[in-house]
Amino acid sequence: MSFPSDIEIAQINEHDNMKNIERISGLLGLDTEDIEPYGHYKAKISSNGIRKAMKQENGKLILVTSINPTPAGEGKSTVAIGLADSMQAIGEKTVLALREPSLGPVMGMKGGATGGGYAQVVPMEDINLHFTGDMHALTSATNTLAALIDNHLHQGNKLNIDPRRIVWKRVLDINDRALRNSVIGIGGPTSSIPREEHFEITVASELMAILCLSQDLDDLKERISKILIAYTYDKKPIFVRDLGVEGAITVLLKDALKPNLVQTLENTPAIVHGGPFANIAHGCNSILATKLAMKLGDYAVTEAGFGADLGGEKFLDIVTPKLGHTPDAIVIVATVRALKYNGGQKLAELKEEDLNALTVGFKNLKRHVQNMRYYHIPVVVAINKFETDTDNELKLLRTLCEGIGVDVEIADIHHKGSDGGKDLARMVVRATDKESNYTRLYDDAQPTVEKIATVASEIYGANNVEYSKKAENQLKVLKENVWDEMPICIAKTQYSLSDDPKLLGSPRDFTLHVKEIVPKLGAGFIVVLTGSILTMPGLPKKPAALNMNIDNDGTISGLF
Amino acid sequence: MSFPSDIEIAQINEHDNMKNIERISGLLGLDTEDIEPYGHYKAKISSNGIRKAMKQENGKLILVTSINPTPAGEGKSTVAIGLADSMQAIGEKTVLALREPSLGPVMGMKGGATGGGYAQVVPMEDINLHFTGDMHALTSATNTLAALIDNHLHQGNKLNIDPRRIVWKRVLDINDRALRNSVIGIGGPTSSIPREEHFEITVASELMAILCLSQDLDDLKERISKILIAYTYDKKPIFVRDLGVEGAITVLLKDALKPNLVQTLENTPAIVHGGPFANIAHGCNSILATKLAMKLGDYAVTEAGFGADLGGEKFLDIVTPKLGHTPDAIVIVATVRALKYNGGQKLAELKEEDLNALTVGFKNLKRHVQNMRYYHIPVVVAINKFETDTDNELKLLRTLCEGIGVDVEIADIHHKGSDGGKDLARMVVRATDKESNYTRLYDDAQPTVEKIATVASEIYGANNVEYSKKAENQLKVLKENVWDEMPICIAKTQYSLSDDPKLLGSPRDFTLHVKEIVPKLGAGFIVVLTGSILTMPGLPKKPAALNMNIDNDGTISGLF
Repeated sequence: MSFPSDIEIAQINEHDNMKNIERISGLLGLDTEDIEPYGHYKAKISSNGIRKAMKQENGKLILVTSINPTPAGEGKSTVAIGLADSMQAIGEKTVLALREPSLGPVMGMKGGATGGGYAQVVPMEDINLHFTGDMHALTSATNTLAALIDNHLHQGNKLNIDPRRIVWKRVLDINDRALRNSVIGIGGPTSSIPREEHFEITVASELMAILCLSQDLDDLKERISKILIAYTYDKKPIFVRDLGVEGAITVLLKDALKPNLVQTLENTPAIVHGGPFANIAHGCNSILATKLAMKLGDYAVTEAGFGADLGGEKFLDIVTPKLGHTPDAIVIVATVRALKYNGGQKLAELKEEDLNALTVGFKNLKRHVQNMRYYHIPVVVAINKFETDTDNELKLLRTLCEGIGVDVEIADIHHKGSDGGKDLARMVVRATDKESNYTRLYDDAQPTVEKIATVASEIYGANNVEYSKKAENQLKVLKENVWDEMPICIAKTQYSLSDDPKLLGSPRDFTLHVKEIVPKLGAGFIVVLTGSILTMPGLPKKPAALNMNIDNDGTISGLF
Repeated sequence: MSFPSDIEIAQINEHDNMKNIERISGLLGLDTEDIEPYGHYKAKISSNGIRKAMKQENGKLILVTSINPTPAGEGKSTVAIGLADSMQAIGEKTVLALREPSLGPVMGMKGGATGGGYAQVVPMEDINLHFTGDMHALTSATNTLAALIDNHLHQGNKLNIDPRRIVWKRVLDINDRALRNSVIGIGGPTSSIPREEHFEITVASELMAILCLSQDLDDLKERISKILIAYTYDKKPIFVRDLGVEGAITVLLKDALKPNLVQTLENTPAIVHGGPFANIAHGCNSILATKLAMKLGDYAVTEAGFGADLGGEKFLDIVTPKLGHTPDAIVIVATVRALKYNGGQKLAELKEEDLNALTVGFKNLKRHVQNMRYYHIPVVVAINKFETDTDNELKLLRTLCEGIGVDVEIADIHHKGSDGGKDLARMVVRATDKESNYTRLYDDAQPTVEKIATVASEIYGANNVEYSKKAENQLKVLKENVWDEMPICIAKTQYSLSDDPKLLGSPRDFTLHVKEIVPKLGAGFIVVLTGSILTMPGLPKKPAALNMNIDNDGTISGLF
């Protein structure tokens, strides 16, 4: 008998074991007026609940990040969830803070974003579909702002906006390549001004990044007012505040700002809120979610998108200063598979034992451990066990880790839930007791090229940064407008430490190519684009949608 | 002191008087598992609740419709809400079934769609903004289907779809004229196939009409599978079932199909669900909502969009046969203002007494009364009192009504709530006790031109119907494909009984111009377009968004 699918495991559990959300919030000391239920198993934490929680002491914060994955992904969310369950199981009051999934890819790929096996957050169908409507609110707010901009053009264009220089883009939470490039506003004088439009997926929107970095409604509104939306014909920047619609856009996001509470298969409370791209944005759940998890638990487990070179670095350099609390331990998730892939084994052959590839690929893990140690926070390694891992491989990997002096545990949480993660949990708890002395990689006040050079050399291992003509001009615009005193957010492939997805392992002394530099004034960071980053994915030849069905009782099949 | 705004009245009441939604559902005999709360004041009625309700007997059904309005609208929803409150106040167990508002216009116009004054459904901010996410689910489902169609083109186009003949359109719940006409799929071979796209507002989508006509998930899926999405290069029709994605699209609508429960300012239960356009669609809340209102109340009050010539006719000819229950009484809402406008008084002068204009304009009401009487259901008139109405005008209108033998009452529910509507309530209850013998205007099996001619002459008063070349060709396509045995849904201006918005009063012997005929195979009706119907509105010069704000506690101002 083969191991059951994620949706099979989830549906059995949802029926037998899922607790009413008021029982979960009750465990956290939250009363009825502190939450707003969405059905019986999901809730938003109300303003009241947020205020109440914020009065409490902070628990300890554990950041889960990873090595460079294979294209199949290596279960970082699964480990974060399994770790939290395991910590609960050994008696530590733990709360998860996770990103919420994008609906867009659901119709394309088979595989959700709510963990897997016996380490999932539930109700997984709802969380992967409309959840509590946060993505839809962001889509709505982003497109309303776009409509207001086009309406301004149409109604006389008092601000003198250059339709060729509108930087604000419409979004949909759908993988829709046909909307990547379009011409809108055609059809004559009653149908607006013709111009190019390039739709992005909702999670790539600046509003998503803003939502995740906002402390409260006032902060959200302030950030929205600062968003750069366009330039005039004489190249002066135009902001949302110039249109005077920051109030209206904030109104549309008032509920989306409230973090969502759900639970894991083992009833561990999980705050699932916000999910910005981990390349063109910072890739972490909302600051409010992480804060609440710290306030409501003795331990908070959170996750940063993609590898430690992307989400990890951004959590530590962009998010941590805004959080007012540094992680107490960093867990780097590694898999035998991904290390062998980084050591040269082919994707199709990863099922076969290959101790040599593992030894070579270990360099990748070693680099990520070294990188995270720059921040002077205790680092441990979690090996996410796959069915195909051999005992020899697991033993070798453990030995290699010990060789570089990093604590390591194997977690079999996908197949066994917390029963497979207690050793990991105990190791992580011990790590949080160690001394920590958070050191940031750069100062925001440094020149932008210096900040980029620092991340490129210290984290990626590059010995040179090359700027395109376009990027050089954008650096000048940054300086002229005094927009350069913000942290940087580098968009780079997640498959390599470099900007070349094929350069696996532990590349050194390469050139990082900066193609474009985009200030995100609302989010408060400078996006540095290397390589080509698609902000609107497409659907595959056989989209997952073809397999989905639902019966008259509402039971879904084929979702994952 | 001026009369407070809608949002001022709502906010005071929401704070002081709104009951937890479980108390409202409790009044209806629904338990915890019969509803899915969305916050503390909104809920969806669960599959369990629907099953439970459907076992009960039907209460009586009251249909609220109206004369042709002024461009400002004449408070049909307000009267429906006030009537229900007044019926509760005289001791009749009453449940409202209403359409849910579109978020799109909220940013443009000042004025919501949740009633007004002391006759509102609450929480009005939520209902007018994201509510329970139904509109967003429809937007998502419509655009996912569009992305799947474009992906099919891109991935080899096995079905031989002609990109020039795709009839399925993307939607947004936003007033966005710049998206009316666009070219998408440009940018070379990685970005799909270039083609025209014409975004519509979400409420104009066929999925909205389908949602409102579906009895359950199986029916919804069956209807979705039948949707006509495109034609091939050799003009063969292509349906959703040919793509095989009806399951996936239904999955996206599983929660949207569940009716929403809220309350009025006076705590009358209100089922607010679905809101299709009243021109290119049938303009009534969902069949499930109306059924539930009948099952859960001794009286159900529902409303049909625009005037009796549009929503009224469609409720009786399209919806009633699917409802399995005919209205027990029809209430035609009239205002002194709108009748004077129909009698030739200028919009700006409607505040001035004009008994002559009222007498002339009364013809409009008379025609609507006659029209509704065709259906052999008791008809009464409700005069929605405005502050500017003079006693002379109200007295004259009452006399004119009595002259044509129709029962009439003045309702002052906007300013007084149920205190101003008890006489109306008593009159309506009496009307439902009268004999009724529902007669439909046409048979679906009649040729389409006959069905159109019947509505045009009997309801509109036309003596001739003229078809464009395009419409004539479309009639042929209808016949060839045996798509003509469906009810018709005529899209026409709401300001006149004719297809000319300037032809006020009681026009006769004019020609109705049919421009286009569009089969909606999923919804199950044939849309007949007269005049030019915009399916994507635009924003005004000074959009309402400019006035909106929200404070750090989440209190909204400037919404209405």
